[in-house]
Amino acid sequence: METTGLVSFGRYTCSHLYFLLLIVLPLGQHTVEGVWPLPQIFTSSIERYPLNPQAFYFGYGRQSAAQFGCSVLDAAFIRYYSLIFPDYTGNGVLHNNLSVSAGKASLNAETVWGAVRGLETFSQLVYQDDFGSYFVNQTEIDDFPRFPFRGILLDTSRHFIPVHAILKTLDAMAYSKFNVFHWHIVDDPSFPYQSQTFPDLSRKGAFHPMTHIYTQSDVRRVISHARLRGIRVLPEFDSPGHTKSWGKGQSDLLTPCYSGSTPSGAFGPVNPALPSTYQFMATLLKEVSSVFPDSYIHLGGDEVNFSCWKSNPDVRAFMQKMGFGVDFTKLEAFYMENIVNITTFLNKTAIVWQDVFDYHELIPKDTVLHIWKGSPANYRKELSRMTKAGMRVLLAAPWYINHISYGQDWRNYYTVQPLNFSGTAEQKKLVIGGEVCMWGEYVDATNLTPRLWPRASAAAERLWSDEKQTSSVDKAFPRLQDFRCKLVRRGIRAEPLYVGHCKHEYQGV
Amino acid sequence: METTGLVSFGRYTCSHLYFLLLIVLPLGQHTVEGVWPLPQIFTSSIERYPLNPQAFYFGYGRQSAAQFGCSVLDAAFIRYYSLIFPDYTGNGVLHNNLSVSAGKASLNAETVWGAVRGLETFSQLVYQDDFGSYFVNQTEIDDFPRFPFRGILLDTSRHFIPVHAILKTLDAMAYSKFNVFHWHIVDDPSFPYQSQTFPDLSRKGAFHPMTHIYTQSDVRRVISHARLRGIRVLPEFDSPGHTKSWGKGQSDLLTPCYSGSTPSGAFGPVNPALPSTYQFMATLLKEVSSVFPDSYIHLGGDEVNFSCWKSNPDVRAFMQKMGFGVDFTKLEAFYMENIVNITTFLNKTAIVWQDVFDYHELIPKDTVLHIWKGSPANYRKELSRMTKAGMRVLLAAPWYINHISYGQDWRNYYTVQPLNFSGTAEQKKLVIGGEVCMWGEYVDATNLTPRLWPRASAAAERLWSDEKQTSSVDKAFPRLQDFRCKLVRRGIRAEPLYVGHCKHEYQGV
Repeated sequence: METTGLVSFGRYTCSHLYFLLLIVLPLGQHTVEGVWPLPQIFTSSIERYPLNPQAFYFGYGRQSAAQFGCSVLDAAFIRYYSLIFPDYTGNGVLHNNLSVSAGKASLNAETVWGAVRGLETFSQLVYQDDFGSYFVNQTEIDDFPRFPFRGILLDTSRHFIPVHAILKTLDAMAYSKFNVFHWHIVDDPSFPYQSQTFPDLSRKGAFHPMTHIYTQSDVRRVISHARLRGIRVLPEFDSPGHTKSWGKGQSDLLTPCYSGSTPSGAFGPVNPALPSTYQFMATLLKEVSSVFPDSYIHLGGDEVNFSCWKSNPDVRAFMQKMGFGVDFTKLEAFYMENIVNITTFLNKTAIVWQDVFDYHELIPKDTVLHIWKGSPANYRKELSRMTKAGMRVLLAAPWYINHISYGQDWRNYYTVQPLNFSGTAEQKKLVIGGEVCMWGEYVDATNLTPRLWPRASAAAERLWSDEKQTSSVDKAFPRLQDFRCKLVRRGIRAEPLYVGHCKHEYQGV
Repeated sequence: METTGLVSFGRYTCSHLYFLLLIVLPLGQHTVEGVWPLPQIFTSSIERYPLNPQAFYFGYGRQSAAQFGCSVLDAAFIRYYSLIFPDYTGNGVLHNNLSVSAGKASLNAETVWGAVRGLETFSQLVYQDDFGSYFVNQTEIDDFPRFPFRGILLDTSRHFIPVHAILKTLDAMAYSKFNVFHWHIVDDPSFPYQSQTFPDLSRKGAFHPMTHIYTQSDVRRVISHARLRGIRVLPEFDSPGHTKSWGKGQSDLLTPCYSGSTPSGAFGPVNPALPSTYQFMATLLKEVSSVFPDSYIHLGGDEVNFSCWKSNPDVRAFMQKMGFGVDFTKLEAFYMENIVNITTFLNKTAIVWQDVFDYHELIPKDTVLHIWKGSPANYRKELSRMTKAGMRVLLAAPWYINHISYGQDWRNYYTVQPLNFSGTAEQKKLVIGGEVCMWGEYVDATNLTPRLWPRASAAAERLWSDEKQTSSVDKAFPRLQDFRCKLVRRGIRAEPLYVGHCKHEYQGV
């Protein structure tokens, strides 16, 4: 029997990507509410169809712009076959053009990335009965994300996160439809990025020059793994603060702090008074721009402590020469303006932490401001103020997921209302999305995964789904429990939300 | 060169157990402060000796009461060989009586368990230089635990913990010299213990009757694994409260709650008014006593809610008949007295939660009271009151390690002073030890290990080491960081204490 279109995805239907699969025989009661994050528009029935792993295959539609050879989808088909049939150890019939006379489902998407998201949704619709047979219910889905930027920040400077743990995180991100990996790759404690142009930065600034670095090959592997899952990699090279580790491999970069009239031996932020600083930053950022293909680059700019600059006579002389007086925010603004201009020349769009807006409201209009400070009252005010100035913003403040407490704190992440601030409809459109930040003071590969999942998934639904349809945190609870078990089933060490069990418990050690 | 006695352990030297190992050639600077928990009495020098994995072996002393064939030590030799030489993939020369003409170290211990602890200490003394060579410094150690009871509680009812995760926990416990695994095996949410006499208890009361149970074989495996590491297994069958899951497989065990004059359909604690209850408990505890060989058995007795008992007319009638009036604490006491008496007949010593003392001060004098309630002020008062009554006590209150917060909460566990309460020297002697409790509301195999380690190790040092020598939490910090890296190196997913790195990061996923 031919049952076209039982499962369909995607808002736009330009290039008519679609895949075929076998769907036969009614029964059952699983519904689309088992999909996390919740799709925008959906209908489903209790009519269920069994899936036969031995006969199941994905295929490209005849009129699809994408065809066999589209590396992203070819790879996704292989991945999702295993995710859909976790028990099945044989080989699936992949890309086999045998026309099997049974049901099929179609997926239409404007882009390959939309198709990848649709495959994720489809994989979550498939379930097993008590006998291990696979089923999917009759379903229609029309889906799209609420916000285009749905990120997770990992901090690989306070602790080194081995590449395999980053790749595993990317896998889990795709399951929650995150699409940006914000790689806070360097900071005060260590500089693990192995630069081609400045190899001393990691040679002297990493925790270990061989075992605690990301080589160019590692970075390419991360970017490629992310890309196949529809995830962009946003590198952050935070300056002028948060750069202690840079100073080890690059002399004359950091400001020497003074105690009275003599250098104290300590170093402060990047020295904004030396032309060599900007030459170095231009060279480094040129390399970073070419290594990381994404159109965005994160330049940091947060938490600059002025005391070292103030202590340094050369910096003070520069201030006088530039007519900044004693206003060090002008110096900070001067520095950031130069850095942002460098990235503009490199055809990149800058993202900066919100501090930069406070110092300098005249940065390029396409710069994205990253809001990280404070309480809901606080970040709402900032959302208003910054969007009123016409700036695009990215919300991280309510999702500092490294902060832990006893109990169900995922509820706090879920109930965030990113657009609940005073402003016009035009202002609201300037909120491009949000980001879950996992700062690394207390986190490395030993505890990253259970701290991140499923807590980050709560934010993922907020960033993807319709707010009205997902307003009840209590209704979300059983759905998130169910999704968490799916993550565990997929080998993600996602921690439990409360008392209970999964059919398949985590089997690793 | 013959260098006997460079490393020696153990306070008592009755049976002259000792092992031999190769120690040659001086250099270096590692000290005994790298051992966690800190030994009681030690001296060490910067003189270091290289260890050659290919020639290293353990042997029994000629005058040792234990000889080849002592299963605990034979197994420990194999285990510790791998722990001492983690990089070495060849086979060590185990139990080879070749007399190699080089240094040796001796370990004297009164019992095999003391020898096992000494092996752990020795394994922590061995370190590698940058070239991967193994060394140990010249060291003399005389060691013994401050408290005889150093426990960890795992709750396998709120979440099922697969056996492999329990075994891994036992491994890590041995590294911190914990010696009691308190297995809170059943509770309200599930009954995973597969009883021989009452198989319906797990068949109907477990989360799943096949995949979420501990079979008799599983239990034997846990006990055997623990025993080889010098760890006793203390089973807890908590009643009369915390027994919801019991009722599913054993009808007429729980008290039917009433709403007015009719049963509400809900059930309360075990029904203390029926003779069948005591027959059931006697049969179950007889089985438990034979399955778990330890001389202690934990009977629970905490958090009994009287409202259901109050609602039930049969229970009220029983109260009248027994002359308890309306004092339900007398009913609770009556029940616990019966249960404790059952275990006395079974030659077991009972441990009960502190609540029991509040209800009934006339329990057998050898019963151990388990203090779990409240703030330091609170538990100190209880320690005073209970030891004044001549009862032995076990302190858990300050070590509810399932409670998490952001930052270095291990400091709170480290600074506990178990004997800092008002009482005589005789009273202080009644504190037999302490216990780290990992209740299972938010914990299963996905996050158990990083939540437990190294936070539990902070309590381990408090329970093992001299309090005066370990009074500074700041001095403990780098030592615990170092020990945590040792745990990671041994494959234990122990989380970081703060910014930094280990030479060997966790490589699992």
